[in-house]
Amino acid sequence: MNNENNHQPGQKPGSACLLPSIESPCELRRLKAEQLPALAAELRSTIINTVASTGGHLAPCLGVVELTLALHYIFNTPNDKIIWDVGHQCYAHKLLTGRQARFATLRQFGGISGFPKREESEFDHFDTGHSSTSISAALGMAAGTELKGENNKTIAVIGDGSMTGGLAFEGLNQAGHLGKNLIVILNDNEMSISPNVGALSSFLSRKLTGRTMVRIKKELEHLLKNFQMGENVLQLLKRSEESLKGFFTPGMLFEALKFEYIGPIPGHHLDSLLETFRNVRDFSQGPVLIHVITTKGKGYPPAEERPGDFHGVGPFEVATGKPFATEGPPSYTKVFGDTLVELAQQDPRICAITAAMPSGTGLNRFAAEFPDRFFDVGIAEQHAATFAAGLACEGLRPVVAVYSTFLQRAFDQVVHDICLPELPVIFAIDRGGVVGDDGPTHHGVFDLSFLRIIPNLILMAPKDENELRNMLFTALQSPEPVAIRYPRGAGLGVTLAPELQKIPFGKGELLQEGSDVLLLPVGNRVATALEAAAGLAKTGVSAAVINPRFVKPLDGDLICQWAGKTGRVVTVEDNVRAGGFGSAVLELLQRRGLAGVKVKTLGLPDRFLEHGSQQQLWQLAKIDAAAISAAALQTE
Amino acid sequence: MNNENNHQPGQKPGSACLLPSIESPCELRRLKAEQLPALAAELRSTIINTVASTGGHLAPCLGVVELTLALHYIFNTPNDKIIWDVGHQCYAHKLLTGRQARFATLRQFGGISGFPKREESEFDHFDTGHSSTSISAALGMAAGTELKGENNKTIAVIGDGSMTGGLAFEGLNQAGHLGKNLIVILNDNEMSISPNVGALSSFLSRKLTGRTMVRIKKELEHLLKNFQMGENVLQLLKRSEESLKGFFTPGMLFEALKFEYIGPIPGHHLDSLLETFRNVRDFSQGPVLIHVITTKGKGYPPAEERPGDFHGVGPFEVATGKPFATEGPPSYTKVFGDTLVELAQQDPRICAITAAMPSGTGLNRFAAEFPDRFFDVGIAEQHAATFAAGLACEGLRPVVAVYSTFLQRAFDQVVHDICLPELPVIFAIDRGGVVGDDGPTHHGVFDLSFLRIIPNLILMAPKDENELRNMLFTALQSPEPVAIRYPRGAGLGVTLAPELQKIPFGKGELLQEGSDVLLLPVGNRVATALEAAAGLAKTGVSAAVINPRFVKPLDGDLICQWAGKTGRVVTVEDNVRAGGFGSAVLELLQRRGLAGVKVKTLGLPDRFLEHGSQQQLWQLAKIDAAAISAAALQTE
Repeated sequence: MNNENNHQPGQKPGSACLLPSIESPCELRRLKAEQLPALAAELRSTIINTVASTGGHLAPCLGVVELTLALHYIFNTPNDKIIWDVGHQCYAHKLLTGRQARFATLRQFGGISGFPKREESEFDHFDTGHSSTSISAALGMAAGTELKGENNKTIAVIGDGSMTGGLAFEGLNQAGHLGKNLIVILNDNEMSISPNVGALSSFLSRKLTGRTMVRIKKELEHLLKNFQMGENVLQLLKRSEESLKGFFTPGMLFEALKFEYIGPIPGHHLDSLLETFRNVRDFSQGPVLIHVITTKGKGYPPAEERPGDFHGVGPFEVATGKPFATEGPPSYTKVFGDTLVELAQQDPRICAITAAMPSGTGLNRFAAEFPDRFFDVGIAEQHAATFAAGLACEGLRPVVAVYSTFLQRAFDQVVHDICLPELPVIFAIDRGGVVGDDGPTHHGVFDLSFLRIIPNLILMAPKDENELRNMLFTALQSPEPVAIRYPRGAGLGVTLAPELQKIPFGKGELLQEGSDVLLLPVGNRVATALEAAAGLAKTGVSAAVINPRFVKPLDGDLICQWAGKTGRVVTVEDNVRAGGFGSAVLELLQRRGLAGVKVKTLGLPDRFLEHGSQQQLWQLAKIDAAAISAAALQTE
Repeated sequence: MNNENNHQPGQKPGSACLLPSIESPCELRRLKAEQLPALAAELRSTIINTVASTGGHLAPCLGVVELTLALHYIFNTPNDKIIWDVGHQCYAHKLLTGRQARFATLRQFGGISGFPKREESEFDHFDTGHSSTSISAALGMAAGTELKGENNKTIAVIGDGSMTGGLAFEGLNQAGHLGKNLIVILNDNEMSISPNVGALSSFLSRKLTGRTMVRIKKELEHLLKNFQMGENVLQLLKRSEESLKGFFTPGMLFEALKFEYIGPIPGHHLDSLLETFRNVRDFSQGPVLIHVITTKGKGYPPAEERPGDFHGVGPFEVATGKPFATEGPPSYTKVFGDTLVELAQQDPRICAITAAMPSGTGLNRFAAEFPDRFFDVGIAEQHAATFAAGLACEGLRPVVAVYSTFLQRAFDQVVHDICLPELPVIFAIDRGGVVGDDGPTHHGVFDLSFLRIIPNLILMAPKDENELRNMLFTALQSPEPVAIRYPRGAGLGVTLAPELQKIPFGKGELLQEGSDVLLLPVGNRVATALEAAAGLAKTGVSAAVINPRFVKPLDGDLICQWAGKTGRVVTVEDNVRAGGFGSAVLELLQRRGLAGVKVKTLGLPDRFLEHGSQQQLWQLAKIDAAAISAAALQTE
């Protein structure tokens, strides 16, 4: 990888002169290849400056600037299709495909998305956000293209991290079998969000095991003996470990799966990329994998130095890379992580599991303090769940920390491998509810609905970060599987009681009495409902407020007692209404014969909510304090 | 694989003399190795004769008789743990671990399960039924064992078909990384339920591609040039394709993932198995993969000849292998398959996708008539869904035929890759509701609940097989994703109208008027509710019956009209009550302000239902005609 820096990392971009003229890849293709490095610098500068104010996925986008340029330069997009895996690396792609004017609205409410979106551009062929989908989707497109008798190219761009997801392997396995014209670009930066941890990763970097080397040497000896070579050849071979290592390329794995393998290619060296892509475009048939080596954060020193910190960022100062200071209470994530460490110090059975997000889920401290009990399984939520089941079989207390939206990947494993055999696995579900800027692919708004239908699972949601601590403490004493669901972002700033308290099983708490209406908010809506209740009190409406704490099992006695007293109930949840907490309350009242109670269920509508701040989305979805008050007043 | 038949396939077992004395593997280990072939024959005879009357997974079980014997003979079970992937190959294991006396109750209501169950035996370490979980679970156990300072062995037994599931790859990837003591036995019979189709499969059978051969030769030339060999060596190499093929073993892939690879071992040759397992037990450290070649159906000629037909069977005649004749109407599966063929003859955009179950889902005819539009993706439901999304992006009309229980694997893909971008993929969901003998791992009883919460998805359930035809016809004209859910087994025997009819979007049908109560059954419960209504009429109760047809969107006007008229509603579904169709009706009535209507929701309870016949389970769960009548009478 010499000679790859044909632009200067960190160079000052000078005045942007090429980018504004690029309204689509047509203009790009009219440039001379020699102009591309300057355009790359302009793209970087625009991305850095914009993300510094909007926040976003900086390091992944900086890593693929040359790759993006080369793809659009060589391939006939949008007829040739690029599918970006995860999609968090698409900013250069957006800037080159007609979205410069709106780029400053990135991830803002009403603005362009941080991910590819079909409805946003004809150049965005697949909506992404979750990992490892690109090969499957691209293979479907390639098969469809062929069925229609067309011959456009289909190109999946996938990171080495995403390649650890089982879905990617399923796609590769069928792609090798079908033999369609599919180009997979493996964007290998030796990390996903954190450094990768699987066997695949070390294989890609050619770290062959000693055992494999021994076998190879033995087999080669045997082979050459059959050719009746002299001893001197064998001696030579024995001394030539390096040659042997070269012989076993990272491509072996992909060739085993019937892909043509090309690479590794230095991913910031435009000439290499252009030449390779041109050759593949003109000469390759069947599935091809191009292995491209890139650097996350390329061209912005703070991001190159700390790519993990710059994977997804909030607003920051360009000159230093320092995030703008945010004051405020600790996040739910941090409180969870700290509490788990505290508990693990007492209980050696506690293990923690993440699917490639030790930092995002708050497990970094746990990983540092208890490396033997910490497991980062790669981007592999299914495996995270079933692996945890195995640990639980051995009497350990596994805690799987996972974002709500990604837990969807493990639905079957939660049902079949954990709840059916009643294994006491704990799911710490972060980012439950709307998540904000990342938008619809990342909102964690289905979990209350899809989890509460599973037998044997206990489902809790804390009203604040101190209750989260107590719920974790309580869950670790449960003989049954437990899910604890909490929101993205800062806690309420309540005092964290040093003494952890066990929450009585299936018991909610009456936060305030009231005679006119019962407010039944769940999780992060509790504080909002209390705010609404205070407002209602000023207008003379007396609202009782119950924090149910358990979405399953519901505290039927407490809820029915106050539902009966008031005759009117308003449920509120940061989750879809369909099948959610409110629906569970309706089921409860029906079961208890309280059909006469009037219920209003507030929650997210039956559509995918856009991106925007959490506050904007709560207001939009009418689950904020004003909406709760209105619902309490109009209960019909 | 010479010399592997140390028992005669199809031999007459003679009188069972060894098996009755084996109460646990302790007795097994006291036998001489020479006695094992005779015991294998007894096991086969017992399995064949029992399954001939109970039905069950015959071919997989016959394929692993020697493997099972050798494992229990060499390893110290249950301290050493065997995890059976899928678990449908566990009959010999059950017979050797204390379950001979109950073996005749296999898969019968109240009897032993057809799958490993922790609650059934200390030798069953993990509940299985779904594919590809064994490596993850075993790895968790191996990690747990090590954390506890124990050194028992953990052994995952996984078929080559299950190896195509992404979960298995996720497990392998972490196992290679962690380096725990884990033994994976790859039970390679070159098929799962149908012949395997992925690239992995042909790799395991050493069918190297021409392209790979060319690369290998080039690299070897290059390598030898560096050693300054003469031309004669290169010539030799060029002529030695066979040697090169031998050089690239099927183990390469697993070594790439840092497993020690041993094999392939002839899987019906006890001496080879014993020796290999003994060596691994005594000398191996870290993850080991033992590649064992077996024959599905081994020892029972009809099953060896047609292993697909004998994968899962109903009762049959031992002498001939012929199933006992079952008269009756065609199954929903067959009607679906035939209708799809009929529609595909008219519409070249229609594609069909299965995850390794072309026969079980009724797609065999489609596969034969439209091979270009038929895709068997392997045991890979996630990929099936996302691949279908790719096809839909190209304007094709993909129909994914899948069992309800396995669709759970693709929940996230349905949400994220299909419903979010509103791609018109159709899911033909077979085995919705309780499935009978296969039991809790296979009941498809969550789908109405987890699908109806997803925005943009249309969800239908036909009352009979003719309506299934019309629903498929209707779905193929929808611009939105559609799921059609139908039960296992025979249809009602209604006439199949040759002319297909489009069902008005979101419209239910009033089947009969009534004044006292509204029965709202869904799918297979419609006929049951009509039966109940007829009974009620005799007692003077006038029941209206609506077939909702759409679980989402509900026909709110029709339902509310009759709910209002009668004031009493009984919903019935072959699905869990939690979050299901009844819950959707409660939400509807609440939204429409019909709080005064009294509702009783019948459905499956909040626990995992055991195995048994469908009729037994419907009765047990109180969703049969008697229960509907009772609910209608007592509505309170």
